[in-house]
Amino acid sequence: LKIRISFLVLQVISIKDNDSLAARLAVEMKADLLILLSDVEGLYNSPPGTNDAKLIDIFYSGDQQSITYGTKSRVGIGGMEAKVKAALWALQGGTSVVIANGTNPKITGQVITDIVEGKKVGTFFSEVKPAGPSVEEQTEMARNSGRILASLHPDQRSEIICHLAELLTERKNEILAANKMDMKMAVSAGRLPSAMLKRLSLSSVKLSSLAVGLHQIAKAAQDSVGRVVRRTRVAPSLELEQVTVPIGVLLVIFEARPDCLKQSKLYPNILKGGKEAANTNRVLHQLTQEALSLHGVREAVQMVNTHEEVEDLCRLDKVIDLIVPRGSSQLVRDIQRAAKGIPVLGHSEGICHVYVDADADVDKVIKIVRDSKCDYPAACNSMETLLIHREILRTPMFDKIIEMLRIEQVKIHSGPRFASYLTFSPSEASSLRTEYSDLECCLEVVDGVEEAVEHIHKYGSSHTDVIVTENKETAERFLQQLDSACVFWNASSRFADGYRFGLGAEVGISTARIHARGPVGLEGLLTTKWVLRGDGHTVADFSESGSRKYLHENIPVEQNLTGHRDSN
Amino acid sequence: LKIRISFLVLQVISIKDNDSLAARLAVEMKADLLILLSDVEGLYNSPPGTNDAKLIDIFYSGDQQSITYGTKSRVGIGGMEAKVKAALWALQGGTSVVIANGTNPKITGQVITDIVEGKKVGTFFSEVKPAGPSVEEQTEMARNSGRILASLHPDQRSEIICHLAELLTERKNEILAANKMDMKMAVSAGRLPSAMLKRLSLSSVKLSSLAVGLHQIAKAAQDSVGRVVRRTRVAPSLELEQVTVPIGVLLVIFEARPDCLKQSKLYPNILKGGKEAANTNRVLHQLTQEALSLHGVREAVQMVNTHEEVEDLCRLDKVIDLIVPRGSSQLVRDIQRAAKGIPVLGHSEGICHVYVDADADVDKVIKIVRDSKCDYPAACNSMETLLIHREILRTPMFDKIIEMLRIEQVKIHSGPRFASYLTFSPSEASSLRTEYSDLECCLEVVDGVEEAVEHIHKYGSSHTDVIVTENKETAERFLQQLDSACVFWNASSRFADGYRFGLGAEVGISTARIHARGPVGLEGLLTTKWVLRGDGHTVADFSESGSRKYLHENIPVEQNLTGHRDSN
Repeated sequence: LKIRISFLVLQVISIKDNDSLAARLAVEMKADLLILLSDVEGLYNSPPGTNDAKLIDIFYSGDQQSITYGTKSRVGIGGMEAKVKAALWALQGGTSVVIANGTNPKITGQVITDIVEGKKVGTFFSEVKPAGPSVEEQTEMARNSGRILASLHPDQRSEIICHLAELLTERKNEILAANKMDMKMAVSAGRLPSAMLKRLSLSSVKLSSLAVGLHQIAKAAQDSVGRVVRRTRVAPSLELEQVTVPIGVLLVIFEARPDCLKQSKLYPNILKGGKEAANTNRVLHQLTQEALSLHGVREAVQMVNTHEEVEDLCRLDKVIDLIVPRGSSQLVRDIQRAAKGIPVLGHSEGICHVYVDADADVDKVIKIVRDSKCDYPAACNSMETLLIHREILRTPMFDKIIEMLRIEQVKIHSGPRFASYLTFSPSEASSLRTEYSDLECCLEVVDGVEEAVEHIHKYGSSHTDVIVTENKETAERFLQQLDSACVFWNASSRFADGYRFGLGAEVGISTARIHARGPVGLEGLLTTKWVLRGDGHTVADFSESGSRKYLHENIPVEQNLTGHRDSN
Repeated sequence: LKIRISFLVLQVISIKDNDSLAARLAVEMKADLLILLSDVEGLYNSPPGTNDAKLIDIFYSGDQQSITYGTKSRVGIGGMEAKVKAALWALQGGTSVVIANGTNPKITGQVITDIVEGKKVGTFFSEVKPAGPSVEEQTEMARNSGRILASLHPDQRSEIICHLAELLTERKNEILAANKMDMKMAVSAGRLPSAMLKRLSLSSVKLSSLAVGLHQIAKAAQDSVGRVVRRTRVAPSLELEQVTVPIGVLLVIFEARPDCLKQSKLYPNILKGGKEAANTNRVLHQLTQEALSLHGVREAVQMVNTHEEVEDLCRLDKVIDLIVPRGSSQLVRDIQRAAKGIPVLGHSEGICHVYVDADADVDKVIKIVRDSKCDYPAACNSMETLLIHREILRTPMFDKIIEMLRIEQVKIHSGPRFASYLTFSPSEASSLRTEYSDLECCLEVVDGVEEAVEHIHKYGSSHTDVIVTENKETAERFLQQLDSACVFWNASSRFADGYRFGLGAEVGISTARIHARGPVGLEGLLTTKWVLRGDGHTVADFSESGSRKYLHENIPVEQNLTGHRDSN
């Protein structure tokens, strides 16, 4: 809907007359868009209120057969047929039309601005039918194929993934050629920072390691879907199982990262890739659908090619179960804000702390602080604030820390308390809640472990926090009391990572508190269902006057001790 | 904010003059409310953008000391001091004031209507300071005390719950007296339906069973929090544990059901009870705080006493982690709609199906259909649609089903296909997606298990669905392919319940797909954190050029086989 708009709004009074009048007037004025405000949301495929009546987002002039108009409908709604006639007439005359609801006085103004901004409101009438299905149709296909995918045998799922791995090797040249096109366009456009370019570029080596990763996933997938996590004998011949199943339809949104495609092979998916990687993604998606065809679930992974805004996608809360954004923390933040009613797996901030206790070992301190800050400063699990026990100030250990940070060229921002101890302090941190994502950190002084915990609760992001100490009691207090997704003792914050945790593929790191927390492996894309097998059992039999009693015997389930092992 | 309002809005041009002008004019006109639209959200406790700057919801005239004004702030924001002065001046003159953001042209109209409707927008200036803390302060207290509660020893947590159980017995008379007051008021007001009255009323027997339930919870709690669910040896001397912890701050909202209070003892909580049970809830909450005092976490459970709207509570997404609504499906629906960004544990619809296959055993069919529909028709897990294999039509089994439904006085609505087979059919169902919640059901015909699954995917609510058949293969296909939280074979849909599943206390039934699905026990209120214990480990050691290799050995964890056993 990127057209210049001179629009015209007519209030509906006597429905039939006004519709045709508005259409005639709009065409006469050569208006680009005519907005008809009605008392229903727009055009439905069958009379609103009946079974399965669905709002039509975009109506193409050829679609008229697919609609049933209400015959005995309420006053006013029967007029939809007249409205459609008027709309189609205007369309022929070169004016696009939107029918939307104008009866909510509070948001009527917003409805109009939303329509003008091209948001999906009401029904849009258009001459041009785009090639390919709409996003809604794609989501529907993903769910339907996804249900078949979920009910495949684990071996069949693995075959699909392994087949994809083979395709990556066999069709290497095709992929690399497409990637070269993307790279060329990105370089000549000159808009991408070099870090993004690096992520965008694929090589033979990268593709091989992608293939290896897929084989690992195939193995993990075999164990993860359909796994019995709990088994209960409710009563004789009445057995309950809790079984893992895929969550449903995922929306995976990524920026300039073609290698992210690999995570999505297992589950029904809508993918929205960055446009910088359009060619590469197209080829990869094609190969994915080829692999899925092996067991007739070609449609389970859909790629969004349209210029849909993320905001529009996030609105599909009835059909999408989980959004997985992969990319910058800005992307994650935008999506968390836009996603109304759909859970988002991700963290938008990683403000990680390392607390150096009075009883810390100096060598461990130096190693851990250096690794936490300098190993990869842009990562979400790197240290942003260094907390130091007051007693360490002006000791050789303190000097060594500062010396190391100086050598590593880490810029220090001082916390207010640290500054108060010094005559000449580094510049004060503008906020104790800053994610520097660079060779910078904040340094603050605390009185002990209790105050460290308090500071982290107040300024942290509940991502990953570390204590360095030789005192086991102090350490356990920190690990116990601190309310973060990851709490470490004498280890670098950089270990907070799905691969390093041994979870196999990492889907993301979540700072949400429900469902999945911290580094999330494939299991984060699973939920469970309850399967009860009986022999004609009724709850009445178990009532006070009934003949049966509940057993509720937990039956041990097999523990999978190899599933998440890495050969690496 | 239930006052008659004659309001006045002035656009801000030259800030200082306009503010005092508006205030004078408003007082002169004896306006009840003056709305000052600015370019910031309202009044902050310190200059916006600095550490910890927080929007003040309600500003009392005595609070002036608690605010730091920006000195070097951006143009326009420095003017807040003038605005506050004008507001306080108007307040003294008898006009209440709201300062809110009016710079978003799209929602400015909505901002004004929202303010007039009493929603929390911007900063409200008021003379009257209410007794007791604000909801935000309560939530803060709940989180802080909750963190201590979470770090208590499991035995201490159990002691708290057992102490509460004792208090329920010791202080029985006090509780029953308060409940009698509530009942008396409810009866004399005559507004509550009898089912609600029944739920509202407490008796000695109910209290005893509450106490028994608490002892059960105490036992379950001992096993549930702090349980290690996964243990991995990442490398020598580097061990990872995934441990269960409480989710965080829960908002429990319930209607006229004082017995719901019991679920909330374990975790930091904000409670909002129905006002019908105000006296009972007050006493119960008092006893809860007494029990919590045993280990210094009195504040972990907070009760909301103000007239806050549910919508306002649902807005507190930074401090509340999960909302648990307990009551009618209307309540759950309202809250799901209102909760922006906070997950809600609950289901708003239970459209459960029983599919009678061609190979079904007639006795089991009669038992299961009767129990699923008639045991408690108002429950969310009772049958709403009966699907019948086409081959059964006009067989003795079919006649027996219809005869049973007639005896049980179940009103039948026919689906379109069922109706097409009959000369005289029952009235057609207005929608195949109806939750009757009464002695009514829809009856539809399908061609087999595949079509049954398709029908349920299309019209069901993914709650609980049942197949009755003697054919194991057909049954397994149904259990495998159907995408519902609970799938049963030859058992009544009414088994979908936390107690019947043996989960101990039931927190609710969830039709959400993430975090918790189906009947949810105490475990649904838990999340996990990752604890890593090392000896100075850095990820650099494990890099390609490093000296160490990941082991990722899974270490078996103890399986708890008695934790969820019921003596019942």
